[in-house]
Amino acid sequence: MRRWNGWGDDQFNLELPAQGQAFLEQRVGSANPLQDATLEEVCLKVPATRLPADAKVDDLIDTRAEVRVRHARGQSLVDWLALRSGEIGIFPDGVAFPDSNSDVRALLRYAKEHDLHLIPYGGGTSVAGHINPIDQGKPVLTVSLAKMNRLLDLDRESQLATFGAGTPGPLVEAQLRAHGYTLGHFPQSFELSTIGGWVASRSSGQQSLRYGRIEQLFAGGRVETLQGTLDLPTLPASSAGPDIREMILGSEGRLGLITEVKARVSRLADQEAFYVVFFPGWEQAKAACRKLVQNRIPLSMLRLSNAIETETQLALAGHPQLIGMLEKFLSFRGVREGKCMMTFGVTGSKAQCRSNLAQARKVCSAHGGVYTGTKLGAKWAEKRFTMPYFREALWQMGYAVDTLETATDWDNVDNLLNRIESNLREGLSKDGERTHVFTHLSHFYGQGCSIYTTYVFRVADTYPQTVARWQHLKNTTSELIVRNRGTISHQHGVGKDHAPFLPVEKGELGMRAIRALTESFDPDARLNPQTLLD
Amino acid sequence: MRRWNGWGDDQFNLELPAQGQAFLEQRVGSANPLQDATLEEVCLKVPATRLPADAKVDDLIDTRAEVRVRHARGQSLVDWLALRSGEIGIFPDGVAFPDSNSDVRALLRYAKEHDLHLIPYGGGTSVAGHINPIDQGKPVLTVSLAKMNRLLDLDRESQLATFGAGTPGPLVEAQLRAHGYTLGHFPQSFELSTIGGWVASRSSGQQSLRYGRIEQLFAGGRVETLQGTLDLPTLPASSAGPDIREMILGSEGRLGLITEVKARVSRLADQEAFYVVFFPGWEQAKAACRKLVQNRIPLSMLRLSNAIETETQLALAGHPQLIGMLEKFLSFRGVREGKCMMTFGVTGSKAQCRSNLAQARKVCSAHGGVYTGTKLGAKWAEKRFTMPYFREALWQMGYAVDTLETATDWDNVDNLLNRIESNLREGLSKDGERTHVFTHLSHFYGQGCSIYTTYVFRVADTYPQTVARWQHLKNTTSELIVRNRGTISHQHGVGKDHAPFLPVEKGELGMRAIRALTESFDPDARLNPQTLLD
Repeated sequence: MRRWNGWGDDQFNLELPAQGQAFLEQRVGSANPLQDATLEEVCLKVPATRLPADAKVDDLIDTRAEVRVRHARGQSLVDWLALRSGEIGIFPDGVAFPDSNSDVRALLRYAKEHDLHLIPYGGGTSVAGHINPIDQGKPVLTVSLAKMNRLLDLDRESQLATFGAGTPGPLVEAQLRAHGYTLGHFPQSFELSTIGGWVASRSSGQQSLRYGRIEQLFAGGRVETLQGTLDLPTLPASSAGPDIREMILGSEGRLGLITEVKARVSRLADQEAFYVVFFPGWEQAKAACRKLVQNRIPLSMLRLSNAIETETQLALAGHPQLIGMLEKFLSFRGVREGKCMMTFGVTGSKAQCRSNLAQARKVCSAHGGVYTGTKLGAKWAEKRFTMPYFREALWQMGYAVDTLETATDWDNVDNLLNRIESNLREGLSKDGERTHVFTHLSHFYGQGCSIYTTYVFRVADTYPQTVARWQHLKNTTSELIVRNRGTISHQHGVGKDHAPFLPVEKGELGMRAIRALTESFDPDARLNPQTLLD
Repeated sequence: MRRWNGWGDDQFNLELPAQGQAFLEQRVGSANPLQDATLEEVCLKVPATRLPADAKVDDLIDTRAEVRVRHARGQSLVDWLALRSGEIGIFPDGVAFPDSNSDVRALLRYAKEHDLHLIPYGGGTSVAGHINPIDQGKPVLTVSLAKMNRLLDLDRESQLATFGAGTPGPLVEAQLRAHGYTLGHFPQSFELSTIGGWVASRSSGQQSLRYGRIEQLFAGGRVETLQGTLDLPTLPASSAGPDIREMILGSEGRLGLITEVKARVSRLADQEAFYVVFFPGWEQAKAACRKLVQNRIPLSMLRLSNAIETETQLALAGHPQLIGMLEKFLSFRGVREGKCMMTFGVTGSKAQCRSNLAQARKVCSAHGGVYTGTKLGAKWAEKRFTMPYFREALWQMGYAVDTLETATDWDNVDNLLNRIESNLREGLSKDGERTHVFTHLSHFYGQGCSIYTTYVFRVADTYPQTVARWQHLKNTTSELIVRNRGTISHQHGVGKDHAPFLPVEKGELGMRAIRALTESFDPDARLNPQTLLD
């Protein structure tokens, strides 16, 4: 069953290998876990619902305490701390499970008639507070799209698939693969996040280099708004004025509820493989990545770990003997301390894969990269969606893990990356605490790339102190990002946690433009208030 | 010097070869040209300016009759007919030539203080009435960005170039090529259209398959609005809410004046070549195109002429002996009547070009295509921007030429193409007139492609009758396009000519979204009124 207070399936646990624990203790000290609240304890804190009865929608709404607890928070670290401590504060007054567009329209009417707030809910995997209810004195109804999870149409000629917006990653792919197609959108949250959520939050997947971000995959669909139904026609491209699709992308539930997504799909490729190359140092590795993407070498995936992430991954991988052999081999080839690990994928026909692999290897070699073949790449592919489970393992040992991500132009990558890492690394020093910080670049563009930083610190003696540690690191680093030409989010969206930093990025007139849209579609701010902007 | 009443440089004339004229006479009958008005005659019709004097901007504004005539109309057929007849109707009251952002801000203040309308003007190449002044009882000031035509910055690492928005195609490329870079945006209007105009109208170039549409090339920049300056930061990608760039793209001057464009540029490629393949028929040719793009074979350009366009191009090409030899060769290979010509380009490193050409040839062969090498492809490249000059040659013979373009999903391409062609072909039959109609597909996406149709008809005995012929063909076909899942424009924008058809495409709520933006940025509808939407 899905964990009520953390990531994923509660039957699936990852163990940190012994030397992984030693590595962390050496970096940040040994830790004492905090006590988790139980589901039963939390359910007892859920207040009576304030939702008014209404025969037209009562069948759609579940007001039981456990359901409300399970839809109260996302997956950010501060959400975790709330769930683990049992101090959740605000719960939705109920969760609706519509099964059709007309159900959704009925819920919108219900909200209007009874002066409610609605929160659209996909997989509940937000790491920026998107789906957390807030207290504005009005009843809050969370609307889960979970039942709208079917492939509704597949146009093979135009390669367009229509999905219910609540379809989660595995069901998107399974329903397409049965016909020989793939969407190719693989965010790390793939196991739980939904196609509608990807659109609402402008998500990007691990293979965006081949398949594009969700902006490129979202061809059109249907949005139910308080002003009526917005049908977004599918067009391969158009110069007919501003693109309405691009206003829905990233709208985070503020304009309406996305109920159907028409997505651009691809035939399953003949071949796919992932490869790992080690570079002697950061500068060479980064230059190779830039060259690969600026020279348009058609990779399907590319990721570059900095030296600390490389070291951490090797330390936490288990199999010390194998890793030892790898280190020896690399050392013999001149790749030693400070080495950086690149993982890349090629996907396509046999001819394409052959040509693209050859081109990529050539660029890597020219930058001092040592190619190690497919073994480690296959390992990456096997574990690509399991990283969030590590958080659970570390939590049980007393470590809190969070990530921060942004994107910036190439000329600013080192500056921003170094500032982010230093700020996180030194952020808790006044408490005498160390933070273990490491980074990878994982989405590449001719113009720049994403920067994805993970940080690990010890939980404090109490939950409130632990929240304060997180809050300090999160706020100071977010501020630093937007003041240094980074976006407040490359792939996680704005939600409530990033909303205070958005005006720096968008500017006054940019915010005015977004506000013009929310005020036009939802003048009473009923839909997901305080998300994206206040 | 630039032609005041038609396309391009008046020293450059294309002659229609003799057999081309015979071909047209056979298709639509022999024609009698209409009499052109002279520039002097038209200048005499220009009324006194209504612009109030204002020392802060007077130096920027030119109110001489000839300048006002030269900025009164674009390049649509109905614009031509107005210019040729001398019945232009409305002229701007003056043309401003700002040289800086502060000049533009001064002009915006001037417009506000004196209750004027402003029309942003790039290259004046609109074929949808974007820059035509209308009569709303207020003085109209056209603002030409012509002086803001410089490369202001080139960031080699992030491959970002900053241009003044008024920089025309040849100056964009020349200034970049001096540093070894290219933008790669080559609309047919390249000779005159500007980078700011491309952004404002969501343009697409002939090599969009490699370089992307202007949406992909436009990284950010500056827009001067009546509410202040909108700075669009450059970010390689972002999930931070709706994308403001995408609201400016296609805004057609309604939100503000784009003054600076930061564009994503590429290193000049090592190699580039264009190739021509003939297919025995439409179905095979179209299937090959679909396969090429859906299989992600990295071409830099792709164009497919239908049978009538192929026949027309060969007839109008001149060199009847060479064409005769080609026809014999093709006939020997089984490619005869009904054949369709595909042109494609490959661009990149030697290894990429070799691999991509091989992949493309394999797909073409599998669909019955006969490869003819680079000779005809080089011809295409040589003449890629000269087609508009043919309009002049045909006009002098008494033929009017216009084009219509749209895009739709693959499953609808034949349906829409056939409807467009039949409607144009039969549209003047009640007058006893024939129209010669032919089509190519020229921008390809996994989901669908653009449809670009050219039509030629004889001018009537008078200008008003000729306008009526055009109006009938244009209106009925535009209506048909939006009622049949086509966009009202794939690459020319909305302007005034397409504005009546936009609501069908965008829907009521889509129009509401756009209107929310225009009303927020320009509540008094001072900027380019009646363009895009009323």
